Amino acid sequence: MTHNVAILGASGYTGAELVRLISQHPSIKIAALAAERKAGLEMAEVFPHLRHLDLPTLCKIGEIDFSKIDLCFCALPHKTSQEVISALPKDLKIVDLSADFRLRDPDEYEKWYGNPHAAVELQGDAVYGLTEFYREEIKAARLVAGTGCNAATGQFVLRPLIAAGVIDLDEIILDLKCAVSGAGRALKENLLHAELSEGYHAYAVGGTHRHLGEFDQEFSKIAGRPVKIQFTPHLVPANRGILATTYVKGNAEEIHKTFAQAYESEPFIELLPLGEAPSTRHIRGSNFCHIGVVADRIEGRAIVIAALDNLTKGSSGQALQNANLMLGEEETAGLMMAPLFP
Amino acid sequence: MTHNVAILGASGYTGAELVRLISQHPSIKIAALAAERKAGLEMAEVFPHLRHLDLPTLCKIGEIDFSKIDLCFCALPHKTSQEVISALPKDLKIVDLSADFRLRDPDEYEKWYGNPHAAVELQGDAVYGLTEFYREEIKAARLVAGTGCNAATGQFVLRPLIAAGVIDLDEIILDLKCAVSGAGRALKENLLHAELSEGYHAYAVGGTHRHLGEFDQEFSKIAGRPVKIQFTPHLVPANRGILATTYVKGNAEEIHKTFAQAYESEPFIELLPLGEAPSTRHIRGSNFCHIGVVADRIEGRAIVIAALDNLTKGSSGQALQNANLMLGEEETAGLMMAPLFP
Amino acid sequence: MTHNVAILGASGYTGAELVRLISQHPSIKIAALAAERKAGLEMAEVFPHLRHLDLPTLCKIGEIDFSKIDLCFCALPHKTSQEVISALPKDLKIVDLSADFRLRDPDEYEKWYGNPHAAVELQGDAVYGLTEFYREEIKAARLVAGTGCNAATGQFVLRPLIAAGVIDLDEIILDLKCAVSGAGRALKENLLHAELSEGYHAYAVGGTHRHLGEFDQEFSKIAGRPVKIQFTPHLVPANRGILATTYVKGNAEEIHKTFAQAYESEPFIELLPLGEAPSTRHIRGSNFCHIGVVADRIEGRAIVIAALDNLTKGSSGQALQNANLMLGEEETAGLMMAPLFP
Amino acid sequence: MTHNVAILGASGYTGAELVRLISQHPSIKIAALAAERKAGLEMAEVFPHLRHLDLPTLCKIGEIDFSKIDLCFCALPHKTSQEVISALPKDLKIVDLSADFRLRDPDEYEKWYGNPHAAVELQGDAVYGLTEFYREEIKAARLVAGTGCNAATGQFVLRPLIAAGVIDLDEIILDLKCAVSGAGRALKENLLHAELSEGYHAYAVGGTHRHLGEFDQEFSKIAGRPVKIQFTPHLVPANRGILATTYVKGNAEEIHKTFAQAYESEPFIELLPLGEAPSTRHIRGSNFCHIGVVADRIEGRAIVIAALDNLTKGSSGQALQNANLMLGEEETAGLMMAPLFP
Repeated sequence: MTHNVAILGASGYTGAELVRLISQHPSIKIAALAAERKAGLEMAEVFPHLRHLDLPTLCKIGEIDFSKIDLCFCALPHKTSQEVISALPKDLKIVDLSADFRLRDPDEYEKWYGNPHAAVELQGDAVYGLTEFYREEIKAARLVAGTGCNAATGQFVLRPLIAAGVIDLDEIILDLKCAVSGAGRALKENLLHAELSEGYHAYAVGGTHRHLGEFDQEFSKIAGRPVKIQFTPHLVPANRGILATTYVKGNAEEIHKTFAQAYESEPFIELLPLGEAPSTRHIRGSNFCHIGVVADRIEGRAIVIAALDNLTKGSSGQALQNANLMLGEEETAGLMMAPLFP
Repeated sequence: MTHNVAILGASGYTGAELVRLISQHPSIKIAALAAERKAGLEMAEVFPHLRHLDLPTLCKIGEIDFSKIDLCFCALPHKTSQEVISALPKDLKIVDLSADFRLRDPDEYEKWYGNPHAAVELQGDAVYGLTEFYREEIKAARLVAGTGCNAATGQFVLRPLIAAGVIDLDEIILDLKCAVSGAGRALKENLLHAELSEGYHAYAVGGTHRHLGEFDQEFSKIAGRPVKIQFTPHLVPANRGILATTYVKGNAEEIHKTFAQAYESEPFIELLPLGEAPSTRHIRGSNFCHIGVVADRIEGRAIVIAALDNLTKGSSGQALQNANLMLGEEETAGLMMAPLFP
Repeated sequence: MTHNVAILGASGYTGAELVRLISQHPSIKIAALAAERKAGLEMAEVFPHLRHLDLPTLCKIGEIDFSKIDLCFCALPHKTSQEVISALPKDLKIVDLSADFRLRDPDEYEKWYGNPHAAVELQGDAVYGLTEFYREEIKAARLVAGTGCNAATGQFVLRPLIAAGVIDLDEIILDLKCAVSGAGRALKENLLHAELSEGYHAYAVGGTHRHLGEFDQEFSKIAGRPVKIQFTPHLVPANRGILATTYVKGNAEEIHKTFAQAYESEPFIELLPLGEAPSTRHIRGSNFCHIGVVADRIEGRAIVIAALDNLTKGSSGQALQNANLMLGEEETAGLMMAPLFP
Repeated sequence: MTHNVAILGASGYTGAELVRLISQHPSIKIAALAAERKAGLEMAEVFPHLRHLDLPTLCKIGEIDFSKIDLCFCALPHKTSQEVISALPKDLKIVDLSADFRLRDPDEYEKWYGNPHAAVELQGDAVYGLTEFYREEIKAARLVAGTGCNAATGQFVLRPLIAAGVIDLDEIILDLKCAVSGAGRALKENLLHAELSEGYHAYAVGGTHRHLGEFDQEFSKIAGRPVKIQFTPHLVPANRGILATTYVKGNAEEIHKTFAQAYESEPFIELLPLGEAPSTRHIRGSNFCHIGVVADRIEGRAIVIAALDNLTKGSSGQALQNANLMLGEEETAGLMMAPLFP
């Protein structure tokens, strides 16, 4: 059986990544591609690397006949997404890649995103899209809110440890190194090649990055009490990849065992042998997440490091993984390609 | 039906690329992986990006039971390859990725490679592996000699034009820009990140690059008279990709039509609209080759530019394409993944 | 004696490069920095790498008291430059880094730049700023028009050869590889890190790049008859550097001797031994230009390759070299820093 | 007055960097360049970017007449350095860039470097080369031991804070991002462009990096009691730069004030306004160190970030700064060049 999907926001990086992944999917067909400002263009003009595919012409959202769509991916900017989704048919399955339905509490949403939420009534429908931890809810969901890419990485490290009670909840530091595609295709001076390559820096230092909203919500929920972590993202001169170096207080062996149990059956999470550290170059272009645990020389402290591809496992790959569940397909369909190295 | 293959030279980049591609192939199984110096290691230790795959432990060539192998990929260094292949069973299907069986004339081989050929008796078996032009011979072949990656790129541009007689044979200039993975995983000072990144240069200037042997052989054969081109490769700070800027004397429209006819049914060759130029970033990680034709402001001159991924279409992808033909499989099996961008 | 200079357009890359160079100059002082849209900011806010310098606050051009300025650098966009310069005091020494005064013929200007020239009356004042070939005129000039960075590179290769009559004037191909800073700090999608890094492509293919106007003007003047070259620029993933691979018909030894004579006393032009090729990584951040000559395997053909830094020798370094001459200073003052490698 | 210096180990990156810096120094002359395996070559053959300089031919150490040398830079590998320095004249001023004389305690040396120290008798002569904190001792020293580049960065952050008692000594985490030139010109697989570019990873995780020996020694000395920090270096795909993200418990404003006092008169340390974070791209190629302080959202915690160029301020620039002091020259001579951006 073939499922017809639409992708809204097809001219951005996560939209293109969805097309790349779905092009190899055995039972999903791209029936519509929307991009408001580029409507009328062929996808090959916007993303020449997809030139070999037979794809629908880019259109406006209003031109799509949603009665023929089984599932809709929304790869739109934050804020636009909630407005668009409000206007979509109420029975349409949706995977949203924006930040708009990640936070359960409208006040928290407004605090982190600066505007009141325009579709509070849909919050009840939304399931948080971190597949490995919300699998059953996602299978039954109508609207799935894809996680932030940084938020996903941090949670793969910390959720099992918080749940198992093996680390000190008040002493968690997440030092994250992100590649530039996570910032999207926006025209910003600091994303220019001449500005970015050959250097690196921290940004949103001190606890101002929006993905902290997701961390606070999820970690506090698991712990049953408020948990606040320290989180510093850095921008490094590479296109894909997130590396999360996490400093925790706990026993490294116990932490490693906790991961071994938590991720035993997970198809996309690879736990490295104790003492080894992962690299972003070994997951690039794939849906895999590599996790390593190392004991520090100071007793009772450990470093946990996770690596994933922000556009794949951190965003569009996660979205397809969720769509597979929502459509009753094999969870791994279209997602088992090996990373691209070198 | 599943075919068992062996890969000799599995610790190099073309070996790893074969594993990446075959991991998605519906009917090929990797039964043996050989790497003399790394025998005994797991592939995950040599190439951690393949960690998620269930692969045989690296072994020595002598440990492989070739009676259970349907086809053998040789991704060994030049010269080693001819020695190893001489010793393999005489009925074993082989796709060789080295330079050892590309040149028909042993004198030409010695001229370009500096040593006498050690397996001249096998030359008769060997078919030149440029799939699009030797398809029928490859289907029937026992031993296929994969082309040089630069040689493949230049031939995709020039073979149809020479065959159609639409360009001046004595005025061909091929200015090539190569990424660094084409040089392999060898420890050479000029391949270090600190040496290579942030700069670029020409090498083998003036007609000394070995792939000229292939150009001379093939172009002269097509033309029915000696053809010598000018060829300057450049090393640019990127990991994958070859861009061949070709200066020819001929009519751009006629050239474009010639390509349109020659490549009409080819699944991997994408001809761009007249006047457009391709980019290596749009074929990276894929088996596609993009070709563009532009008329120069000087009448009667044209620029033809081709882009492909040296490790895929230029090497391991070509090898798998040939193996598919030799094994009676669909030519495109395992090779239709979209390029990785960004 | 200290000379006071103003830099108009200080928020772009060539403006910042001028500040970098002048910061080490023994007798030039930066008295004013103008940047219309960023007026009021400190230079450290716009270019934090200049934080350690004691510089004037950015202002609007109208705020500068030009009676106290000995020389003015105009690092403004094309078209803006001619308007601004028209309004400056008529006795002010000016080094213009834009394209506005490079072409002597207003029709040629309009043909290449698409708009009629707004300051034709100043054309008579302007001297073409390729120091090595217009040294005496520059010493006496009021207004010097800095060359295009690609145009400079091509001319360092071709001027001596055309002048000496040692190459075929109708068979010149210039295949150029440029780094991205040459495109400036403009917000364009194709200059984003995610778009540009990891790939490369040709642009303005077929003879449409504006710097051809300079080549046509200068080469025809030297030859005493029309000379049209083929010129294809490529964008490569690096920040600084131009590599010009030039295919000519002529004798390599004779060509090498011609360079040896032409550049014998030049402080910034380094001729490599015959048979060697330069690399952009060996001139980065400096005012040097390296030139190499190699004979092709086809008799009577040669490849000449030049490398320079587009922001230094190709632009701001050239501008300072010219300013030194106009101010009666040592031509090399502030310009002898070694390249930055690695 | 001109001082004659020799550079031992001139074929490595720190040796080349010394030549680059000294080429602009008003009163230091390079009288000898030694490189055992490359003796007999010209520097231009080993480092073509220095081609424009008039330098002595590379020689063996034994060929140098040290009676004519005022100061000797040793840019040799660890272990080799102590052997070579033992054999040099006992009154020769030496700046050593290796690790051999950094640790006062021979047991600590053996613990971190794995071999007994071969020149313990010289330990008494050696002064630790962190200029800003050992200025007076360095002026009087015969043998100065240059610091590790990571060690320098961490100390610029932590020394003033430990000395002032404004942070918790038991809760210091240093997450460091290093560029690849810090690993030198050695032929290692993980330093190849194809391996390193496009990805990043942590190494020496858990407290095994040798520079911890320096941290332990220096911080414990300042604090008057043992201080052990957590330290995780990461390798990022860039050539120059170290970014040290430091997590401390203390008041951000107090920390900022402490730096303001400590570095008030330092010519090379730039303290950013409270709340701002530095970038490696703004110090590249220079001797400057930028430091930023940001308060975390969790009260009582702060993030301090320092950026410097590992080859300049972290190594050869520091060495020249020390040599200036030892020779009675202006401390900043030859070191005030602006960073190279972009």
